[in-house]
Amino acid sequence: MAERRRDALQFPESEREFLEPHLPPKHRADDNTSRVFTTLTFATSLDSSLALSPGTQTLLSGPQSKAMTHYLRSRHQAILVGVGTAIADNPSLNCRIEGVGGYGGDGLEGQPRPIVLDPNLRWDFSSDSKVLALAADGRGRAPYVICAKHPSDLKRVLLEQRGGKFITLNISDTGPSKGKLDWTDILQALRDHGVQSVMVEGGGAVINNLLQPHYATLIDSVIVTIAPTWLGQGGVVVSPPRRCSADGTPVPAARLRDVRWHPFGEDVVLCGKLQ
Amino acid sequence: MAERRRDALQFPESEREFLEPHLPPKHRADDNTSRVFTTLTFATSLDSSLALSPGTQTLLSGPQSKAMTHYLRSRHQAILVGVGTAIADNPSLNCRIEGVGGYGGDGLEGQPRPIVLDPNLRWDFSSDSKVLALAADGRGRAPYVICAKHPSDLKRVLLEQRGGKFITLNISDTGPSKGKLDWTDILQALRDHGVQSVMVEGGGAVINNLLQPHYATLIDSVIVTIAPTWLGQGGVVVSPPRRCSADGTPVPAARLRDVRWHPFGEDVVLCGKLQ
Ligand SMILES: NC(=O)c1ccc[n+]([C@@H]2O[C@H](COP(=O)([O-])OP(=O)(O)OC[C@H]3O[C@@H](n4cnc5c(N)ncnc54)[C@H](OP(=O)(O)O)[C@@H]3O)[C@@H](O)[C@H]2O)c1
Ligand SMILES: NC(=O)c1ccc[n+]([C@@H]2O[C@H](COP(=O)([O-])OP(=O)(O)OC[C@H]3O[C@@H](n4cnc5c(N)ncnc54)[C@H](OP(=O)(O)O)[C@@H]3O)[C@@H](O)[C@H]2O)c1
Repeated sequence: MAERRRDALQFPESEREFLEPHLPPKHRADDNTSRVFTTLTFATSLDSSLALSPGTQTLLSGPQSKAMTHYLRSRHQAILVGVGTAIADNPSLNCRIEGVGGYGGDGLEGQPRPIVLDPNLRWDFSSDSKVLALAADGRGRAPYVICAKHPSDLKRVLLEQRGGKFITLNISDTGPSKGKLDWTDILQALRDHGVQSVMVEGGGAVINNLLQPHYATLIDSVIVTIAPTWLGQGGVVVSPPRRCSADGTPVPAARLRDVRWHPFGEDVVLCGKLQ
Repeated sequence: MAERRRDALQFPESEREFLEPHLPPKHRADDNTSRVFTTLTFATSLDSSLALSPGTQTLLSGPQSKAMTHYLRSRHQAILVGVGTAIADNPSLNCRIEGVGGYGGDGLEGQPRPIVLDPNLRWDFSSDSKVLALAADGRGRAPYVICAKHPSDLKRVLLEQRGGKFITLNISDTGPSKGKLDWTDILQALRDHGVQSVMVEGGGAVINNLLQPHYATLIDSVIVTIAPTWLGQGGVVVSPPRRCSADGTPVPAARLRDVRWHPFGEDVVLCGKLQ
């Protein structure tokens, strides 16, 4: 057993219970046919903002919610963000729950694979980027970057040295992801690379794209943390594109079913499935 | 005791308990010095929308939350909306909880006074408007319309016949309500007209104006119902104006303290005070 780390997070057993029905099964046969269990999870303010302004990171939820996010990460094989988040946040994208690899546990057990959607290779990472530094330090995995362009040899080698890689897909030319990477392709690529569960964490563009009705059947679980604050106008807002009925009347864009609300410190955690 | 009505709503005792700390005291001396107990309450989607589009009414919350709103109305002497809501919704603005006047109770006991903020007299009400029809029918009170212009004799007589009136105030020429009615003036006018508690219900422009730090000390209680749905872009959004620190960095616009989350059917009810 590796050394216990001071920055390891605790998430009590008693709190894990309410999340269980909303998580990928703990013991899942490693078959290659099944689809990727996909969880959409993020934290917003009351006015549905992820951050005070584009390109900045905002601490929204309390310490308990943070520990919950890391517990959720330990229960997924991969965590996915858009390149906007990779650039704005320089995120760690690892799991710091006590007992996972690098935080008291062996090897990289329980450490999710970071996935970054970066069609145009805008993310200018280096060995100093947090996610790569953590991978070098044995406290996280190196990312898979999903792109639609040819990466430089320099970046490719840097990623591969740490166990990461580039995965190249085509840009979608129809449907709700036209001009972007399409979710069906993304999830299939993850499946092809051995990923059976993924937690999509953000940011705004990624979430709003994925919340469209077209993708509802791809999402197994939605877990939203809401903090009792209004960030105010001008933030990075979660609000899917408008949806209209046949006669042009606006209708709700998305709704959850099997809803559970769980007060959690000052925040509330909402779990459900897309209808 | 008047006849029991079929459309009367039930709100069980067991549910009233969690609201009690957030409501005006039940037995309050009728002194003329105290300030107006002000509750801000509304229902939003997860993306903080009050309605699918400006000028339309959207059913957001479930039947239990609706009954709660009517119970809250029974606990306030007045309920206040902006003219945008009066025009869009043709609202009833009465209380249908079983036992109040018109719904099993005597006279108009427990019926709140509707207040409409209409500085420019844009609300073209008639005796057919729901709120006036209900007043004629003994199932609600006629509104006080707060304006900044001289109303026509026709409208004035129509209101006064039912027990309502126009209250004329000046348009604010400074501060966060510049060009609008100011909250300090509005609440003072209500006090002058014998109103000791008011529940501000909406809509978007009214709530966003009132959520500004300048008015935080005027608000005693905030009660927000959130439905597990995303209405999508283009709705009537609650999100207060951006707030910045001295150096121009955006900071959260408002935060609640003494927060309580109460799951309620499919919805959640959030109670708190403005910091
Ligand atoms: N509170 C939270 O839980 C949370 C979580 C994560 C992030 N955030 C915040 O969110 C903000 C970043 O969000 P963001 O909206 O700027 O960027 P983002 O959603 O992280 O990334 C969006 C980019 O991803 C690429 N992409 C590829 N396929 C896509 C698809 N199908 N749908 C959408 N995007 C796709 C596009 O790159 P191209 O433009 O190159 O095509 C797009 O611009 C930051 O402020 C961050 O702090 C908050
Ligand atoms: N879900 C809910 O709980 C809920 C509750 C209520 C309403 N709603 C929805 O909200 C929508 C209406 O909202 P809205 O934003 O259009 O209109 P609104 O907030 O109801 O009314 C705004 C108007 O009130 C007047 N006003 C006077 N003083 C004001 C002040 N200090 N601050 C702000 N306004 C002041 C202004 O009239 P002038 O422009 O003439 O100056 C202003 O345009 C409707 O779709 C309705 O269905 C939803």
